[in-house]
Amino acid sequence: MIIIMQTQAAPDQVQAVEDEIIRIGMKPFMNPGVERKVIAVLGAIDAKKADLVEHFYSFPGVERVDLISHLWKLASREYHPQDSVIDASGVLVGGVQAVVVAGPCSVESEAQIIDIAFKVKESGATMLRGGAFKPRTSPYAFQGLGEEGLKMLAKAREETGLPIVTEVMDTTDVDLIAEYADVMQIGTRNMQNYSLLKKVGSIRKPVLLKRGLGCKIRDLLMSAEYIISEGNQDVILCERGITTFEDATRNTTDINAIPVLKLWTHLPIMLDPSHATGDWRYVGSVAKAAIAAGADGVLLEVHQDPRHALSDGPQSLRPEQFTELMGQLRRVAEAVDRTI
Amino acid sequence: MIIIMQTQAAPDQVQAVEDEIIRIGMKPFMNPGVERKVIAVLGAIDAKKADLVEHFYSFPGVERVDLISHLWKLASREYHPQDSVIDASGVLVGGVQAVVVAGPCSVESEAQIIDIAFKVKESGATMLRGGAFKPRTSPYAFQGLGEEGLKMLAKAREETGLPIVTEVMDTTDVDLIAEYADVMQIGTRNMQNYSLLKKVGSIRKPVLLKRGLGCKIRDLLMSAEYIISEGNQDVILCERGITTFEDATRNTTDINAIPVLKLWTHLPIMLDPSHATGDWRYVGSVAKAAIAAGADGVLLEVHQDPRHALSDGPQSLRPEQFTELMGQLRRVAEAVDRTI
Amino acid sequence: MIIIMQTQAAPDQVQAVEDEIIRIGMKPFMNPGVERKVIAVLGAIDAKKADLVEHFYSFPGVERVDLISHLWKLASREYHPQDSVIDASGVLVGGVQAVVVAGPCSVESEAQIIDIAFKVKESGATMLRGGAFKPRTSPYAFQGLGEEGLKMLAKAREETGLPIVTEVMDTTDVDLIAEYADVMQIGTRNMQNYSLLKKVGSIRKPVLLKRGLGCKIRDLLMSAEYIISEGNQDVILCERGITTFEDATRNTTDINAIPVLKLWTHLPIMLDPSHATGDWRYVGSVAKAAIAAGADGVLLEVHQDPRHALSDGPQSLRPEQFTELMGQLRRVAEAVDRTI
Amino acid sequence: MIIIMQTQAAPDQVQAVEDEIIRIGMKPFMNPGVERKVIAVLGAIDAKKADLVEHFYSFPGVERVDLISHLWKLASREYHPQDSVIDASGVLVGGVQAVVVAGPCSVESEAQIIDIAFKVKESGATMLRGGAFKPRTSPYAFQGLGEEGLKMLAKAREETGLPIVTEVMDTTDVDLIAEYADVMQIGTRNMQNYSLLKKVGSIRKPVLLKRGLGCKIRDLLMSAEYIISEGNQDVILCERGITTFEDATRNTTDINAIPVLKLWTHLPIMLDPSHATGDWRYVGSVAKAAIAAGADGVLLEVHQDPRHALSDGPQSLRPEQFTELMGQLRRVAEAVDRTI
Repeated sequence: MIIIMQTQAAPDQVQAVEDEIIRIGMKPFMNPGVERKVIAVLGAIDAKKADLVEHFYSFPGVERVDLISHLWKLASREYHPQDSVIDASGVLVGGVQAVVVAGPCSVESEAQIIDIAFKVKESGATMLRGGAFKPRTSPYAFQGLGEEGLKMLAKAREETGLPIVTEVMDTTDVDLIAEYADVMQIGTRNMQNYSLLKKVGSIRKPVLLKRGLGCKIRDLLMSAEYIISEGNQDVILCERGITTFEDATRNTTDINAIPVLKLWTHLPIMLDPSHATGDWRYVGSVAKAAIAAGADGVLLEVHQDPRHALSDGPQSLRPEQFTELMGQLRRVAEAVDRTI
Repeated sequence: MIIIMQTQAAPDQVQAVEDEIIRIGMKPFMNPGVERKVIAVLGAIDAKKADLVEHFYSFPGVERVDLISHLWKLASREYHPQDSVIDASGVLVGGVQAVVVAGPCSVESEAQIIDIAFKVKESGATMLRGGAFKPRTSPYAFQGLGEEGLKMLAKAREETGLPIVTEVMDTTDVDLIAEYADVMQIGTRNMQNYSLLKKVGSIRKPVLLKRGLGCKIRDLLMSAEYIISEGNQDVILCERGITTFEDATRNTTDINAIPVLKLWTHLPIMLDPSHATGDWRYVGSVAKAAIAAGADGVLLEVHQDPRHALSDGPQSLRPEQFTELMGQLRRVAEAVDRTI
Repeated sequence: MIIIMQTQAAPDQVQAVEDEIIRIGMKPFMNPGVERKVIAVLGAIDAKKADLVEHFYSFPGVERVDLISHLWKLASREYHPQDSVIDASGVLVGGVQAVVVAGPCSVESEAQIIDIAFKVKESGATMLRGGAFKPRTSPYAFQGLGEEGLKMLAKAREETGLPIVTEVMDTTDVDLIAEYADVMQIGTRNMQNYSLLKKVGSIRKPVLLKRGLGCKIRDLLMSAEYIISEGNQDVILCERGITTFEDATRNTTDINAIPVLKLWTHLPIMLDPSHATGDWRYVGSVAKAAIAAGADGVLLEVHQDPRHALSDGPQSLRPEQFTELMGQLRRVAEAVDRTI
Repeated sequence: MIIIMQTQAAPDQVQAVEDEIIRIGMKPFMNPGVERKVIAVLGAIDAKKADLVEHFYSFPGVERVDLISHLWKLASREYHPQDSVIDASGVLVGGVQAVVVAGPCSVESEAQIIDIAFKVKESGATMLRGGAFKPRTSPYAFQGLGEEGLKMLAKAREETGLPIVTEVMDTTDVDLIAEYADVMQIGTRNMQNYSLLKKVGSIRKPVLLKRGLGCKIRDLLMSAEYIISEGNQDVILCERGITTFEDATRNTTDINAIPVLKLWTHLPIMLDPSHATGDWRYVGSVAKAAIAAGADGVLLEVHQDPRHALSDGPQSLRPEQFTELMGQLRRVAEAVDRTI
């Protein structure tokens, strides 16, 4: 950690900071002669000392505190240099095979989910997605079928063998959803719902953690750290678009996040082009970009009849479009030494 | 609602949209001669039909669906033309008096919270804030004192008479917090935690709803609608900065949100300059701007010794700075025909 | 064009709008029965009538004016359905072959530029880039060699046969630069320097137009329209990252822009991963994503010794890294039926 | 300057950085024992050494380079501790009196500009604004009257005594505009048109420098530095809204920028609520906020008949609205010990 004093900091302000560094059991080290007083703090500043940045920033005369190290530890590449490969009921996420999770936004009926499960499986999807508990911007919009939806997903898994990914929105639903799901999804709006993160951290089921719309890559990793620090190491990260001034698409896909995350963390990273663009016309292009950039897989919304989907129709592919895209994705995957 | 077809939409695609409009009990109305086919949909599109936009957007050949009306209803100025004035245990929010909620970020001890409560009351604060359950980016940072903290807040209220505002982070804590708090705060990270919104909507206690960092003004109102639609009309909105490319301050205060919200909703609007700037040196300036712009009050972090605050020290005012600022705020309030 | 009145608009306000529509030679068409008064305006609203939106928005009682059509015309896919293929001194941009423009940020010496030109050509680059006039954030930073730099670029072209791309910053330099360059680049900071756009529009040389950091896709197309409307149809668009809250990378690559632009315009689209990420460690990943997403080429900064580059060293590849990346890009290009 | 090495940096990479520091005449200073190698660079890193950050960032093994000091010098508060007060043909900007610059977006006719000049003067405006050269997003929109417009502005000044502010868009127009204008405005789209900045820097006329839509506060100060470093110290900064995800208003007013700039620079700061909101209904509220926050003045668009303005009608106040707002602004100014 490095503490940068204001140009006009008084000697006793500098002294107060040095005294405090000693008080907490670390060693101050003054850098001579630079434009401003700069104090290096010697001693390990691990993730457990996250509060120290704010602590020193509050001292009079301090301009800025620079942690140097990242605040996540268990999620860091340094802590765990090899790529983590997560076993989701037999499907490996983070290995050579790029994973394709496909299915409708919402589970609508047993017939629908079983039918689409067979269709996406046939085209090569490796997992089935479908929401039973749906976070919707409007309280009047369809909120999902709840436990009934979970049962339908389980039936679809039974019939097709595809592991299922479904969202959990509330701490009180975690145990129920963990009974049915192979992967528990934390949605974008709950990425910083710390109660929920802690709860899924206490369960032994992989978690798919979606990036919050207004959250930085480092925030995503801090949320992953919440889960891992509770004992659950099976966290799959998911870029799904961020909020920017560009309104031609619903969100802006942060494709840079793929190589950045590959550098900073050992956790697998997927990308959801359906939510990241909000328009099925752009999904294929961005899905191919994701695989080319090094993502460990994609989530794709597929619906038999997007016109009559109960949610997110505009961004859903029809099964035949999905089949065509799968052929293209396979070629791109091969070009970057992956399989699909 | 207006449906705009793609330039190259085929006649049978236009027909399919018209048929569907009739099927759902509304009337299509084709606008003649404009560059693209545009279909007006006759019939009331109230908030309960929020799904229709997506529904029609999924039809082939549709370029865009424009709802014309806002999707919130109970929160809208049209539904309730007069300003709502919310009674928070005797303090009126949304009236002539601009409300000042002051106190530390976190409750740290009984002595601390009682001492600061007396201090801010003396300078004119009308409510006391303090976190007992704290959402922190790092799992290793101080997470709050929990129920012990709530008891300390209650003690401070007993001694000073100031109503208390405190955050609720999880559905399972709502009942507990409602027992102690005069106003339940939904924090920025939980603005779209719909389970939590529904739960506080079922309680008869005012809610202070903070805007999410990456959320639009219209999203904030949809979240308010969640609460009101469950039966709780006492929602106080709070602007607290949004996430932008500017990094000179922690967040960017969206001062425009004040007049926009005054136009769109009857709910009172407060502003939190401490979080919106992240730096005590800018708090006073932005607090004055908030009152001048028409906000119904401000939330200000005040701590006896920001250097030793357990959280958010850098943005906290010392009591003497708070006192000075209160004098300035009173003058600005008078200049816009308010009192403090 | 559609004009949406405020809910509380008075009948005479509606009448005034209708009268004005007639006055300007168009036909008003009132939509019956929808929640608000909505007036369709019949008659062609082409790009020449861009001012009409603001005009009607200024009328009392008007809530919103929706143009329906895009404001660009000559740049639109509707006006020119086929992809434009631009001939840059023999190199075709926008055809089956994806184009790789490579070279240093700044021209530093004749030996340097000739050496790097040979190196990138050998690895398969199709054009040479290099700045002689440099826009730099700091007035004290290296500003480029000016005309001397142009002469060095010309020498490098002569020796290698690679067409050259170089930036023009000021109207007074356009004629000079047009003498030397095969493609004139408009940099991100000048995307809305309309005097400059008009000037390059009057020259018969292809223009590479880089997107402004804070500019929407539609703004980029309006700037292209400026150039085309002056008579120069050879505009190559370039995505190079936008400004967002994410600070892990210098800018955020808007990969969505590739399929959006492919839908909206016939002009070729390139992507500059060096500026869009600002870090050579991420350049390869994003370059592959660009080609997979359908970009017509990439711009890549390559420098013999990035440590001693006079500008933009951190984002430059070394020649051997460039060679390796070219091999990867070729494979990705083939996977999407392109060549490199 | 501080250079932070990557965790896994090799000893010879650290050595190479140290050698380079010595080579350029400075002194390296290694901080012992912190998590990563951190090298402090001793010696003055003034604005002239702006390139050093990139230079060292390009060395292998370097994670980050932190300049500590700001890159602007002449514009800094440290260089010039007192507030600069700029004399614009007799009107002092940056003193106790907050300045109100009012007038139409575009000059439309001599009668119009003279009439509005008298009206705004009567209500208390201290300067007249009006565009003769207009930067418009669409090439088909009204582009201004050019030199004719300048003459009309001069006539209005002659009749009313109000100094005039008008925009310059191109280096070739600077001399012409300097002949007529009292203050030359650099518009938001040209904030980083460095050729233009240098040119106005060589003239002895105050410059009103508007912040670019996608530009940080530090970029604004670097652009000011361009002007000052050419010899023209009379730079007035102007916040006019930035580009964010919020679309309820055309731009987002960065009110935080006012106190940040007051801390970082001695230059006066104005705010333009008309462009920052894009809607006359929000202008008054944000103008009051600006004055309360400490801005040295506001720019307000006023038009006799916004419905028939040739540009920016929706954000223009009518003269009677302006008069009313002036009364309110005066009260707010007094509340913060300013006059208007």
